[in-house]
This record gives sequence, C-alpha cells and structure tokens, in this order.
Amino acid sequence: MKNIFLLFIVHCLLSVSLHAQDAEAKLKELKIELPVLGKPIANYVHVVRSGNLLFLASKGPSNAQGVYITGKVGKDLTLEQGIEAARLTAINQLAVLKAELGDLNKVKHIVKVLGMVNCEADFKDHPKVINGFSDLMVAVFGEKGKHARSAVGMCSLPFNMAVEIELIVEVE
Amino acid sequence: MKNIFLLFIVHCLLSVSLHAQDAEAKLKELKIELPVLGKPIANYVHVVRSGNLLFLASKGPSNAQGVYITGKVGKDLTLEQGIEAARLTAINQLAVLKAELGDLNKVKHIVKVLGMVNCEADFKDHPKVINGFSDLMVAVFGEKGKHARSAVGMCSLPFNMAVEIELIVEVE
Amino acid sequence: MKNIFLLFIVHCLLSVSLHAQDAEAKLKELKIELPVLGKPIANYVHVVRSGNLLFLASKGPSNAQGVYITGKVGKDLTLEQGIEAARLTAINQLAVLKAELGDLNKVKHIVKVLGMVNCEADFKDHPKVINGFSDLMVAVFGEKGKHARSAVGMCSLPFNMAVEIELIVEVE
Repeated sequence: MKNIFLLFIVHCLLSVSLHAQDAEAKLKELKIELPVLGKPIANYVHVVRSGNLLFLASKGPSNAQGVYITGKVGKDLTLEQGIEAARLTAINQLAVLKAELGDLNKVKHIVKVLGMVNCEADFKDHPKVINGFSDLMVAVFGEKGKHARSAVGMCSLPFNMAVEIELIVEVE
Repeated sequence: MKNIFLLFIVHCLLSVSLHAQDAEAKLKELKIELPVLGKPIANYVHVVRSGNLLFLASKGPSNAQGVYITGKVGKDLTLEQGIEAARLTAINQLAVLKAELGDLNKVKHIVKVLGMVNCEADFKDHPKVINGFSDLMVAVFGEKGKHARSAVGMCSLPFNMAVEIELIVEVE
Repeated sequence: MKNIFLLFIVHCLLSVSLHAQDAEAKLKELKIELPVLGKPIANYVHVVRSGNLLFLASKGPSNAQGVYITGKVGKDLTLEQGIEAARLTAINQLAVLKAELGDLNKVKHIVKVLGMVNCEADFKDHPKVINGFSDLMVAVFGEKGKHARSAVGMCSLPFNMAVEIELIVEVE
C-alpha cells in the first residue's frame, strides 16, 4: 500500500515536470494583460476550429489604447519598434486564444506561424522582427510554443500596419 | 405512436432551421454560373484533400471569357474593380469546390482564407478588396461561410493578376 | 492452391503499380544528396507535426556550400537562376522531411505549397520560378508529389534570399 502511494507521488511529480508550464501563470508573471477583442470589421471571424486545429485570422499590432503601430519597418520604424510591434501582435493573438478557449493551458502546440513584415525592397531582417512574436509565444507556452514559421516582407499591409501575423494552433 | 410521429416532425423542422442554407439554391438565386475549370499549367493541382480538409491552390480573377483582370489595385484599377476581382476569384474557387465535391452543400465550413492584393507600397484598403471574396462566400454558405482570414499586399502576382486567393475548407 | 498463389502474384504486381514510386531510390537516381540541417536561428523549429500533417517552416535556397542564393529574380537573377533557387529550396525541404521521418517513403502526399519569390513590382513569372520546386517534388514522389500551391511575389525576403517556400505534408 505504501509503495502504491509512493508510486502515485512520483507519478505526480513526473507529470508536473514533464508537462508544459502553466501558460496563465506565466502571463501573469510577465505582467501581460490581454486586451478585449473588437469585432472583425468584415465578413470574417477571429478564429475557426476544425478538428483539434484552430486557424486564427491574422492580427496586427495595437497598443493598450487600441491604436495600431503603423509604418514600414526599417524606414518609418526602427528594427526595435518592429520587434515590439510583433510582440504586441502576439498579445492580440493570445487574446484570441483566451477568448476561444477560456484557458490558455488548453493550447497543445503553436503549430505554424506566418509572420508578415511591412517593409521596403531592401529590408533583410524579417526573422529578427518576427522573433518579437515567437519569443513571447515560447515565453508563455514553453516547448509547446515552438512553431514552424515563415517570416517575409510585404509590399503593404492594411491601414499601413507594421506587421501582420496569422497562426495555426493545436488544442486538446 | 402519435407522439413519436410528432417528435419526428419536430426533429425534421429543427434540422432544417438549424442546418445551413442550401448553397446550390443560393448560387442559382444569385444568378452565378460557375466556369469550367482549366487544367493547372504546371506540376500542381487545384485541390488536395487531407482528412476532411480541402487545401485549394490559389486562384486569380478571370471573367466569363476566361480573361484575367490584371493591374495593381489603387493604381491601374479602382477599389471597386479590385473588389469585383476578388468576387470573380471567389466564383473560380466555388467552381473548384463544385468540381471536387459535386455538391456545394458538402462544404461544412470555409476555414481559412489568404487574400493577396497586387498593389503598391502605400495601399491600405486590402480588407475592403478581399471583402469581395468573403462577402460572396457568406452569401452562398451563410454562417458556414464565415472564415478566419488574412488580407495583405503583394509586390507582384503571376501575369499581373489583381488578386490571388487561397483557402482551406472543411468538408463532411 | 495454385489459384491462391496466382492471386498472390497478381496482388503483388498490382501493389507495385498502384503504389507510388520509391522516393529514396528516385533521389539516388537523380543523384541528389540531402544537406545536413542547421539549427533554426530563432525560437522556431523546422517542422511541427499535428495528427498526420507536417507543417514545415519555410526555407530558402542554399547551395552545397551552405551559401544562400540571393537577389531579386528578374533583376539580379535570371529566370533560370530563380528556377534553380526553387529547386535548391526543394532539396532543403526534402532534408527536413528526411530528418523528421527517417524515410521519405513515409510521405503520403505533398498537400500544400506556398512559393514566395523575391522580385520587383513588374515581375510576372512566379509560376515558372516555383516550378523549380514543384517539378522536383513530383520527380521524387510521383503522383503523391502533386500539390495545391500558390506562387506569389514578395517585396523582400530574409537576407535577400531569392525564394522562400513553405509546405504542408501528409504522412502515414
């Protein structure tokens, strides 16, 4: 009987260490407050679920006041401002996930990210910009946050937003 | 016995009201005639099915004569012409779905749309352009037509097409 | 007994003809040697599996020395150099599949390809460029290699790479 109890304790400890970090706790630790989602301004929705995959509509970077960060990265915005724009976009997509799932710990894996940077023809640092998004995903979800991604340069984006990022997420 | 019959009737009525609209009937009501698909001009196909997801190759806008609408939206084409190009692209993708499924009512959900607009660096109205596509999908499929989407600006598109749109569709 | 044996022979012959070609043998026949994968330079991974779908991060064209083919197709690079860049990108993605699966014959279908060409606003031959990728996939995988695809023009790509291509692959 004692052995079974010990086995149970070991099992619990292993579960904690093997399972991913608590995304909700991590969000609080990072002092990130998720914004309230506006309604999409056209005949589309924030997210569609098919099986255990969530397909998220792309979002752009809006600050705490809901104002978009606009301009071309490398021209109107510095690289650092571009990275911050990608980070703000990650926060907006976390808000979509939170609204859809209720609990971010229901995320099983961030599967695929398409990171689009508003920039000019000679820009080369797209990966650094989109790291602003990727790094926050990995900070919040740990190993589950590591995704396949593309980082590319767009000739223009809606409302001249600095970045626009869409993603596919696997859920439980 | 009578009760069971009544239950059956209620069930049928509920089914009709709960289920989505008849996409084929809607298409006729909108007086939209689907074009006959040409063969892809390279080593690729119009659509690949994996499980209950259809991945559609992107299409551009061709009119009833099969001629592509070309030019950059906001420069060579007006916003209205861009919207019409997106609508024509939707009709071409409906033709792909019809050829693949036989019956558009087998569509369970339009999941994800990537709408790419051929435009210049200062263009900002990508969402309005891609609404030409999204609005027709929702007109034909109702709630099932509401999708997650991205609308972005491309430096150039094949043959200088005005728009190019790809999508993922869930089927029964 | 003889009949059962004959049936078995017929079954084997049918299996060979109905099943796809041997991708590993084809690769050797084409004298293609797959490169060793470097580690992604950021918080992302080469590939994420969800169910029986592999989502591959986009890759660019690097030659046998690991040096990227850079420049805008149609301006810095000829069309032929662009096609070769797309072919080199296909080889890099085959290396990702080989590393993930151990055996390329575990590929059930190349489902979806997004082929992005680094080019200028007046470029029109994106499909020809991306054929460099598509043709190699079909050469290696046969019918299983035929995919839905989009071929589009990007204002800029990381490190000024000539092309960047991502894909979704169904596996057994």
